[in-house]
Amino acid sequence: MTVTMASTDDLKMFWADARDRADALDAADPLASMRALFHLPEDVIYLDGNSLGPAPKAVFDEVESATRHEWADGLIRSWNTEGWFDLPQVYGDRIALLIGADPGEVVVCDTVSVNIAKVLHAALSLRPGRSVIVAKSTGFHTDRYIAEGVVATCPGVRLALEGHDGARIEDLIDDDTAVVLINHVDYRTGAIRDMDKLTAAAHDKGALAVWDLCHSAGALPVDLNGAAADMAVGCTYKFLNGGPGAPAFVFCADRHLSGVSQPLSGWWGHADPFAFEPGYRAAPGIRKFLCGTQPILSFRALKPALDIFDGVDMGQVRAKSMALTSLFIELAEASCAPFGIALASPREAASRASQVALRSPDAYPVMQALIAEGVIGDFRAPDILRFGFTPLYTRYADACQAAKTLHRIMAAGRWREARFGARHKVT
Amino acid sequence: MTVTMASTDDLKMFWADARDRADALDAADPLASMRALFHLPEDVIYLDGNSLGPAPKAVFDEVESATRHEWADGLIRSWNTEGWFDLPQVYGDRIALLIGADPGEVVVCDTVSVNIAKVLHAALSLRPGRSVIVAKSTGFHTDRYIAEGVVATCPGVRLALEGHDGARIEDLIDDDTAVVLINHVDYRTGAIRDMDKLTAAAHDKGALAVWDLCHSAGALPVDLNGAAADMAVGCTYKFLNGGPGAPAFVFCADRHLSGVSQPLSGWWGHADPFAFEPGYRAAPGIRKFLCGTQPILSFRALKPALDIFDGVDMGQVRAKSMALTSLFIELAEASCAPFGIALASPREAASRASQVALRSPDAYPVMQALIAEGVIGDFRAPDILRFGFTPLYTRYADACQAAKTLHRIMAAGRWREARFGARHKVT
Repeated sequence: MTVTMASTDDLKMFWADARDRADALDAADPLASMRALFHLPEDVIYLDGNSLGPAPKAVFDEVESATRHEWADGLIRSWNTEGWFDLPQVYGDRIALLIGADPGEVVVCDTVSVNIAKVLHAALSLRPGRSVIVAKSTGFHTDRYIAEGVVATCPGVRLALEGHDGARIEDLIDDDTAVVLINHVDYRTGAIRDMDKLTAAAHDKGALAVWDLCHSAGALPVDLNGAAADMAVGCTYKFLNGGPGAPAFVFCADRHLSGVSQPLSGWWGHADPFAFEPGYRAAPGIRKFLCGTQPILSFRALKPALDIFDGVDMGQVRAKSMALTSLFIELAEASCAPFGIALASPREAASRASQVALRSPDAYPVMQALIAEGVIGDFRAPDILRFGFTPLYTRYADACQAAKTLHRIMAAGRWREARFGARHKVT
Repeated sequence: MTVTMASTDDLKMFWADARDRADALDAADPLASMRALFHLPEDVIYLDGNSLGPAPKAVFDEVESATRHEWADGLIRSWNTEGWFDLPQVYGDRIALLIGADPGEVVVCDTVSVNIAKVLHAALSLRPGRSVIVAKSTGFHTDRYIAEGVVATCPGVRLALEGHDGARIEDLIDDDTAVVLINHVDYRTGAIRDMDKLTAAAHDKGALAVWDLCHSAGALPVDLNGAAADMAVGCTYKFLNGGPGAPAFVFCADRHLSGVSQPLSGWWGHADPFAFEPGYRAAPGIRKFLCGTQPILSFRALKPALDIFDGVDMGQVRAKSMALTSLFIELAEASCAPFGIALASPREAASRASQVALRSPDAYPVMQALIAEGVIGDFRAPDILRFGFTPLYTRYADACQAAKTLHRIMAAGRWREARFGARHKVT
């Protein structure tokens, strides 16, 4: 795997050849024109769109219009004239197109964490005799944290965790399982879980399957209804580029909508929210997953991001994603293996989502050094360098340059001088 | 109360005299200069700031900077460099100053509805042997709806409602009461509940008092710690002018913070959110009331609104509020009583928050006619015309003009022609 780079000339030739290949791939890239739709600072190679997507250029006018025209000039009238109240469903129907859902099955609202609480309670409401939530011990943490909170409020309900004593999700599902909560993509390694197979495994035992799409929505083709998934949640600020802390979404399969209930029964989920009825009566459709008044400015920033996805061929996105990550892995391994860098992501492209994780004992200072040189990825404890490859705006030349920068830092030991910055980083 | 306006001349004199009084009050108003800080459309008298506050002029630059500079240029780095992650506490400490709380007792996050769920569960966690939530049957609806959801998930817990069979909150509190949820201000009539007295009544029986400050925060002096209140929630898009669907807040008295827990245990409420520990461990302080990633653009819009409140004397706000509502009531009653308009708000200014409710059998079309003439209040079923008086930007002349317009519409029966618009209106 590792090439021998005995001399400076060998090294030059290696990177010159890599760059030529990258440039040829960029020249033939059917998605190349999409990059112009995003604001990308010139001094940066941004490989952290799996944590916070960049701003669509159209968002500046959109947010200004929402602030000046809709709020400041329209005032309270804009709840009607601008359709603010309907945005959760209007945007939900657009996200549905990207995740294999039908109109009326998705609503945009709240946060992923709050939405996980809703769907877990909703799933328990559909399986009243069952007492177990199956989840992954080391999935994205908020999934498990919220599941713990659900268990704490529901006497008799308990959590069974994949990863404890080597247990796999498939082995944990039994006749007492109400619901299985699964990250579609592992947030660290980028490994994709098999949605068809795990959903079927849940259904075989009469359990429901709930998917967390945070690292797959907008990154790869997702087919919730094709897999017969029951419910799902996801975020819009990663691969969907909706802005920092942009609202999350909930999917519930149409076949469950009439019978399901969830306990965050706020007025936006009421069947007739403006009738101000004394008692709660859930909306008949997906709106029953709404709760309170939604942050409209953050909603409006999501629109230009969704506009960009109109007409995007997710098959092309997936093909480029696999090619980008494969190129980066090849170049990084070939040049950096001697420095203790190892692949943590699945080697097979088909099993890998739109990110590459490399392991290094010095991952934290190495990432700090990379960021200082303008290559922005992120660090995940304890030893992961994580790079997101987002086909709508990342070039093959970026993948090449990122690998070259990583090699330069490792070869020069430059990360040893890297300043240790603050640890805040939001996935 | 009603003046006799036998002739057109009498009428002219009545309104000329009213306008002179209003102008004199405006000229002597110590808060008059604050109005210039808000964007107010010229053709509108805005009396719906109790539903959605107007835009501070500084918000346009603030939101543009948050979008262009912080998100688009800063990308993921802004979570550190711009302190996004700390905004819930930073803004919470500023709101604390307006509601009689101490630093570290308030956090800005999520929606009022979601936060009510948190504080009700939190209160139940502090009173484990008790099974009753006392609330008002006809308080703001989401309060009761959410309480119903909490009851549905907690076996053995039940709801006791003020208003059923004439029961008052004080009569419902007993040794089995865990928590009392009270709207500080009635959203329709503007009647203020006595925070000292009702909190003491709850404490007398060993119960906790939770206050909903949606219609009092920023509208009148609130002293949560003075009243020994236990917890509270509130919104920032009404009298605090934070923008449509701006994030809500939670207050928890410091004495409860170490022992309390709430089940929406998302990663933002974790003691060490970036350690990505497998199990949930609640933050020791007010951050344990956080859950998921917050909508940053909507947060940033709140800052200029809070800036405006810096140095505002809430005593002056309250004095002007009482004078504004008193003037409007006097003029509206004197001119409109013959047309079936009656006061629904408390007559005594001390019992009335910063709004006036008038009853009319034709309230809906009358409000439509008022809005068509540029006086924006709102309708509340079945028969309430609601007008918010917000001392930072409402002039006495506006109160006078609003009453005059109402009289003109009633006298001409013009509301009969008013178009029936859409019913959406968000409180």
